[in-house]
Amino acid sequence: MEYRIEKDTMGPVEVPADKLWGAQTQRSRMNFKIGPAGSMPLEIVYGFAYLKKAAAYANCDLGVLAEDKRDLIGQVCDEILEGKHDDQFPLVIWQTGSGTQSNMNVNEVVANRAHQLAGKTIGEGEKTLQPNDDVNKSQSSNDTFPTGMHIACYKKVVENTIPGIKQLRNTLHNKSIEFDNVVKIGRTHLMDATPLTLGQEFSGYVSQLDHGIIALENTLKHLSELALGGTAVGTGLNTPKGYDVKVAEYIAEFTGLPFITAKNKFEALAAHDALVETHGALKQIAVSLNKIANDIRLMASGPRSGIGEIIIPANEPGSSIMPGKVNPTQCEALTMVCAQVMGNDVTVTVGGTQGHYELNVFKPVMAAAVLQSATLIGDACRSFDENCASGIEPNYDRIKNLLDNSLMLVTALNTKIGYYKAAEIANKAHEEGTTLKAAALSLGYLTEDEFNEWVKPEEMVGHR
Amino acid sequence: MEYRIEKDTMGPVEVPADKLWGAQTQRSRMNFKIGPAGSMPLEIVYGFAYLKKAAAYANCDLGVLAEDKRDLIGQVCDEILEGKHDDQFPLVIWQTGSGTQSNMNVNEVVANRAHQLAGKTIGEGEKTLQPNDDVNKSQSSNDTFPTGMHIACYKKVVENTIPGIKQLRNTLHNKSIEFDNVVKIGRTHLMDATPLTLGQEFSGYVSQLDHGIIALENTLKHLSELALGGTAVGTGLNTPKGYDVKVAEYIAEFTGLPFITAKNKFEALAAHDALVETHGALKQIAVSLNKIANDIRLMASGPRSGIGEIIIPANEPGSSIMPGKVNPTQCEALTMVCAQVMGNDVTVTVGGTQGHYELNVFKPVMAAAVLQSATLIGDACRSFDENCASGIEPNYDRIKNLLDNSLMLVTALNTKIGYYKAAEIANKAHEEGTTLKAAALSLGYLTEDEFNEWVKPEEMVGHR
Amino acid sequence: MEYRIEKDTMGPVEVPADKLWGAQTQRSRMNFKIGPAGSMPLEIVYGFAYLKKAAAYANCDLGVLAEDKRDLIGQVCDEILEGKHDDQFPLVIWQTGSGTQSNMNVNEVVANRAHQLAGKTIGEGEKTLQPNDDVNKSQSSNDTFPTGMHIACYKKVVENTIPGIKQLRNTLHNKSIEFDNVVKIGRTHLMDATPLTLGQEFSGYVSQLDHGIIALENTLKHLSELALGGTAVGTGLNTPKGYDVKVAEYIAEFTGLPFITAKNKFEALAAHDALVETHGALKQIAVSLNKIANDIRLMASGPRSGIGEIIIPANEPGSSIMPGKVNPTQCEALTMVCAQVMGNDVTVTVGGTQGHYELNVFKPVMAAAVLQSATLIGDACRSFDENCASGIEPNYDRIKNLLDNSLMLVTALNTKIGYYKAAEIANKAHEEGTTLKAAALSLGYLTEDEFNEWVKPEEMVGHR
Amino acid sequence: MEYRIEKDTMGPVEVPADKLWGAQTQRSRMNFKIGPAGSMPLEIVYGFAYLKKAAAYANCDLGVLAEDKRDLIGQVCDEILEGKHDDQFPLVIWQTGSGTQSNMNVNEVVANRAHQLAGKTIGEGEKTLQPNDDVNKSQSSNDTFPTGMHIACYKKVVENTIPGIKQLRNTLHNKSIEFDNVVKIGRTHLMDATPLTLGQEFSGYVSQLDHGIIALENTLKHLSELALGGTAVGTGLNTPKGYDVKVAEYIAEFTGLPFITAKNKFEALAAHDALVETHGALKQIAVSLNKIANDIRLMASGPRSGIGEIIIPANEPGSSIMPGKVNPTQCEALTMVCAQVMGNDVTVTVGGTQGHYELNVFKPVMAAAVLQSATLIGDACRSFDENCASGIEPNYDRIKNLLDNSLMLVTALNTKIGYYKAAEIANKAHEEGTTLKAAALSLGYLTEDEFNEWVKPEEMVGHR
Repeated sequence: MEYRIEKDTMGPVEVPADKLWGAQTQRSRMNFKIGPAGSMPLEIVYGFAYLKKAAAYANCDLGVLAEDKRDLIGQVCDEILEGKHDDQFPLVIWQTGSGTQSNMNVNEVVANRAHQLAGKTIGEGEKTLQPNDDVNKSQSSNDTFPTGMHIACYKKVVENTIPGIKQLRNTLHNKSIEFDNVVKIGRTHLMDATPLTLGQEFSGYVSQLDHGIIALENTLKHLSELALGGTAVGTGLNTPKGYDVKVAEYIAEFTGLPFITAKNKFEALAAHDALVETHGALKQIAVSLNKIANDIRLMASGPRSGIGEIIIPANEPGSSIMPGKVNPTQCEALTMVCAQVMGNDVTVTVGGTQGHYELNVFKPVMAAAVLQSATLIGDACRSFDENCASGIEPNYDRIKNLLDNSLMLVTALNTKIGYYKAAEIANKAHEEGTTLKAAALSLGYLTEDEFNEWVKPEEMVGHR
Repeated sequence: MEYRIEKDTMGPVEVPADKLWGAQTQRSRMNFKIGPAGSMPLEIVYGFAYLKKAAAYANCDLGVLAEDKRDLIGQVCDEILEGKHDDQFPLVIWQTGSGTQSNMNVNEVVANRAHQLAGKTIGEGEKTLQPNDDVNKSQSSNDTFPTGMHIACYKKVVENTIPGIKQLRNTLHNKSIEFDNVVKIGRTHLMDATPLTLGQEFSGYVSQLDHGIIALENTLKHLSELALGGTAVGTGLNTPKGYDVKVAEYIAEFTGLPFITAKNKFEALAAHDALVETHGALKQIAVSLNKIANDIRLMASGPRSGIGEIIIPANEPGSSIMPGKVNPTQCEALTMVCAQVMGNDVTVTVGGTQGHYELNVFKPVMAAAVLQSATLIGDACRSFDENCASGIEPNYDRIKNLLDNSLMLVTALNTKIGYYKAAEIANKAHEEGTTLKAAALSLGYLTEDEFNEWVKPEEMVGHR
Repeated sequence: MEYRIEKDTMGPVEVPADKLWGAQTQRSRMNFKIGPAGSMPLEIVYGFAYLKKAAAYANCDLGVLAEDKRDLIGQVCDEILEGKHDDQFPLVIWQTGSGTQSNMNVNEVVANRAHQLAGKTIGEGEKTLQPNDDVNKSQSSNDTFPTGMHIACYKKVVENTIPGIKQLRNTLHNKSIEFDNVVKIGRTHLMDATPLTLGQEFSGYVSQLDHGIIALENTLKHLSELALGGTAVGTGLNTPKGYDVKVAEYIAEFTGLPFITAKNKFEALAAHDALVETHGALKQIAVSLNKIANDIRLMASGPRSGIGEIIIPANEPGSSIMPGKVNPTQCEALTMVCAQVMGNDVTVTVGGTQGHYELNVFKPVMAAAVLQSATLIGDACRSFDENCASGIEPNYDRIKNLLDNSLMLVTALNTKIGYYKAAEIANKAHEEGTTLKAAALSLGYLTEDEFNEWVKPEEMVGHR
Repeated sequence: MEYRIEKDTMGPVEVPADKLWGAQTQRSRMNFKIGPAGSMPLEIVYGFAYLKKAAAYANCDLGVLAEDKRDLIGQVCDEILEGKHDDQFPLVIWQTGSGTQSNMNVNEVVANRAHQLAGKTIGEGEKTLQPNDDVNKSQSSNDTFPTGMHIACYKKVVENTIPGIKQLRNTLHNKSIEFDNVVKIGRTHLMDATPLTLGQEFSGYVSQLDHGIIALENTLKHLSELALGGTAVGTGLNTPKGYDVKVAEYIAEFTGLPFITAKNKFEALAAHDALVETHGALKQIAVSLNKIANDIRLMASGPRSGIGEIIIPANEPGSSIMPGKVNPTQCEALTMVCAQVMGNDVTVTVGGTQGHYELNVFKPVMAAAVLQSATLIGDACRSFDENCASGIEPNYDRIKNLLDNSLMLVTALNTKIGYYKAAEIANKAHEEGTTLKAAALSLGYLTEDEFNEWVKPEEMVGHR
């Protein structure tokens, strides 16, 4: 491989000749061989591209950066956002906890690429842009990295997670309406209980997701606060006056999202409770999804020796050894995602507790975990919706059969003959393996007409 | 011990003669010898007292319960809320996951105590009130327990947790103002960085808690939704029309808190995402408090070989072997609480994932964990405030001494001579153990007047 | 209430006149009003009683404590271990993270009680024993608290947890043998699969618990290492030579358990990985128990609309509204315990990460969590065993019925006609709602005799 | 892109013409678009390669597979293990929870590649090997996937994790010896305490890692048990007699690792407590590493306003805005890894709890989490060792300066003048800002000669 020499304040470093990055990126590659290369999420790099461009514009407006430099920076950032330089960001999550080296990676790539755009050869002639003094002007890793991660996480949540959840929510809502008249046995403690409709069951899932979406949206305000302008410790040292508000406005403009400058920059650098908050909502949604997926696979279990009340799509052969087997694979993928999200919540929590003084140095691991959870939930909701939920059908015969046999229909008699006599009827039917009606009549607590009048499953499903 | 015989649908049971509870409570005591007796939080019993009274009033209004029964039920519930029967609730968290036995414990105590109030002897004569048919009228364990736990958790959060956090927040806010002019060295990565004021540091803590309080308050709406009226599976079987809304109104009236009936009763029984949501916010606050407590003990460390920038109250001898030792004990109690809350979050999360069909049967463990976290955070904030935060004083000499020696003041030169030359100065001073000014002048990058003009810590703390 | 004055190095404190504790205990009560009083587990107090007595004996042997003092200390410790002073230990978990105040609580109670035993009145005359110089001789909170918690946790694990698990394990093992010939349908992905015996299913549970017991026992060696002798920072300052080994020998003698002095005292004070290790095994067992309890409640679900393959004891009325309902309540209590243990694991983990320099100051919360988990698992295993597992019976008719209908018996044909043709048969039977044999014959892939010969569920359960 | 048609029991599917995979892999790609493609760890694919080859050999030995088929399968597996087909495994973690599709991915690739090796064109002519009947012979996804993941995890732990930990452990041990005479101030509660040597501090870290390695090795026995031979539900249906033992022997031979057949196959399919157990030990090690890394960055903090007792290597410029800054970046990377591992532990735990009946369907997420943790810990230990630990040097002047000023040297006087008088001396020195000796003499509790004789830091570090 061919190399060129790049320098930083610690001296010269050999960098692959065909790469745009510089000395500090290269040092990081050598010093942090932890896990696969390039694990730092590209979404964060794109977040940096937005903020570097915005900083250039704000710096220019405020008279501390020349227009031609602004334009060059903006041009490279646009290229990055178009995905043209995805292979120029080889660093890992497991680097310095401030993400300094990823900030420098972006600074170096922007500077070197700008040199090319200016018609020059990297490593030759005076630098068109200085990574620290120009590209990083009015910035520190300490305010850029949290800004980049807020941009990345906010975008992911509103562009992937929430739409995915809503897509599934809407399907479940439609199913809820569609199944509104399918009266079935209810189950509590996994045991037979009083009836409800399949539509009512699904309405509970919809309500869970509705609450989850509200909870997630509630966290976006905190997440919309950007640290940029705080620089090294939150004081805004080396920024021009008004810069923090202006740079946030540019980021809002470039992303089309309602970002604002953080009211308190000291918190914004030293603590990442906003990520903890957002991930808390993602975890809540994972809890909901886990419940929903579990119910669906239980109800779909069988085909002959399970519950079998609903039928889900058969998407692939289920077994390499058992011919003809069909499994609730989308439920499994979804609940595995939930397990991952629950674990990620602890990672984010632990990272969040460990800020010291002016800086939390668990930024990359926290941001990566939030991005992973947000991606997986959105993706898995869509996958589950398209490959499972949207194809759910009731197994009408089975549902009716189970309903008609249920002993818990006896509950309707509580208000007529009291709980204790009702219990006697149910126990007798259970022990003797007979029907409720037979037991009721043999005990003489009511007439057949009364039984027929009082025990009607379809009238036991509520005031509707 | 003397016993009397109580009966339920399974037959007779011996109950201690001096106790108000009945057969089902006694069965639970025998069947669930798990951990210390009486672990079910009394707050949940009180939540039941509110709801049993409200149910009696709603049932009476809607014509399904006689006024004298209503009044008896109400009278016993008031006695329970006055703490007169605290020793009548001996059950544990680790019982049936619906909390059925705690519901029956309340039903039995109300019925037996009402019998006494009616001038009769327990176990003699016709029952004044039937536990199931009267006290539990229009109710099921499946909607009462979640209602009781929402009442308990909501009350705890608004009456203990939030006031405790606000008390600490206000002290920190006052300290932030008081310390507004105390310029000190900043630290990032635990390493010396550019200066800020001690007030700015504390303002970050205030901002964290402000965000935390908002996050916690955001969860209250979900928590204010009550399951009552859903009865067995959410359909409201055996309730009179309009009951759910009315009973929630009574609960709101009796508690003075804005409870409403849950829009979707199926979710309200089968999932407890509301608890997951509230505990998520408690966990976020634990994350904040952990950061704050860690900073304070680090800054107070010493007295001679630590950081020593602040002085915290000496509340007790710190060591049984080291004479004269003083320790940051309030920080330790607070961070231990944080560790507990982080663990509880997983307990609540795991419990939340495991609802099946129409019922989540992890209710007691979830509710107990939320109550414990809410109690501990409120109490610990108050304890930390009164015994530590309110007494924090700056160690002015130490602060000034550390500030004046800092090499990171060099950052102010970036905009004057560029990052690279500034780095050269800092490195030279570090290596030679000399001052920044000496290094700067010896390198010839600026004059002494320029140095004195440009490097002023008190002007490096932001646009204020 | 009447008070007397007690003093420590910070001055006088009013203490309730009827209590044995002294100044530092009282300060702790006032300074740490966090959660209910007395939350510090008594097991830890008892651990202290063992070690205080052992220290007195070792000190005496090594010539630094008089025999009469030794005997007085030993006498009070014995009283504590007999439970005579349980109400003298009012402190909470949420105190100083070294547990210093609980150490002093014990020192003060021993000193004051010894004063009584010496025939004097507390607070009058010269102290018979000095809390710090005599009772705490050759000790520090920093080595006593971890010693006390190791003693407490070790005892709990071997005296409660392991016997409880083994009791359940043995019942499951007996059931496994008893059910060895009960051929039933298997289920994978909750879907019908090839057959196995009910005994085989239960043998899997036994194997899980066997592995779990081994894993838990593997951790006992680390837990048997005692910090005592390390005093303040691990160096053993102020201890006579040979003291650490001797004091551990006395503890081993007094407890009858194989405690040894820790090889490295610096670890023993600064890190509590031994608790992390032990709790990790408890958590693993919780994972196993959760699986087992879930299986059992699924298999017992019904009675008419669930799986219904086994019958579990009906211990109590299951519902306050649904007459005659029986629920898997022991499964619910057990899985709630599992959720608690999973949360506790995070508490212990977080506490374990946070030692600094020579001391971990999350001792009380870590020890309390380990003790709670160890208690709950032991108790819940016993409760589950006695009230559920030991009464499990197969529902033979239901098992046979489900087995005979299964489509997955087709798997036996793979080796005869190949996976693809077998799949065709299964799919045809499924779609047409017919039997496997009918589908097989209609497709012409084999004769009826061949089918009868090859598809025998009882021969599909392995090489036994 | 060009496609060819592949078929499975559900019908034809278009597969990219240049790929070796077949119909089921392609279905999985279309049905599980969750997160980035190819997330299923290659280590698991390699685990499959070992087991497919072993199964072919065992099947051949036992007379159910022809030698030429065995050799073809073995040849392709060897190619996979050489990394020649890494791009043929595009599936994600978030698929069916049994990993069925990854098993089929391997079966399909082996079959198609064998077809090529047999000189034929994929998709043309009779299949040389049938994916299900030949490559998967005597196997099911349900026993192959857990076998593959055990192989992968075991290899990773012994080849990467343990060597990485040991490398760091040895460096710390050497440092411990090297620093044996460097007496320094101890710190408890972050506050000044009695002295110890820097070597003693490091010996505590060594002891933590030694215990951690033992704990991790203790888990390997469970992990060495292989499910292979259990097939669909653990009964070993469709396997020749003796197959399970033989196939494990081949795997042991091919991998050079002590794998054995699982004693109980029902557990081996239905529960993955072995992964829970191994990850528990990884988490314990993360706890240890977190403590160690925190101590080192605290001790290295400064350079002028921190603790500054040790000097760590300066590997890269620490700040994009603060010139000359050096940060403890390896500590940060390492502790971020610890946070990830703590989260992964919850993921593995949650996955482990959720087996149902004969199969746990959280296999991929559990295996991926264990592999990630094992990789990260091994890599991060090495990185931390080479870039930080091995370069640690004491800052002798600073250490001596802090030691000499310490008030806690007073503890040496406890045994001479008693705890109370010693406390008086320390308090006086603290309040008056004077030396211990001055305070001691002014109080008249001892002579200067006595002070000099009794208070010698170098004699306070233990019986050595």
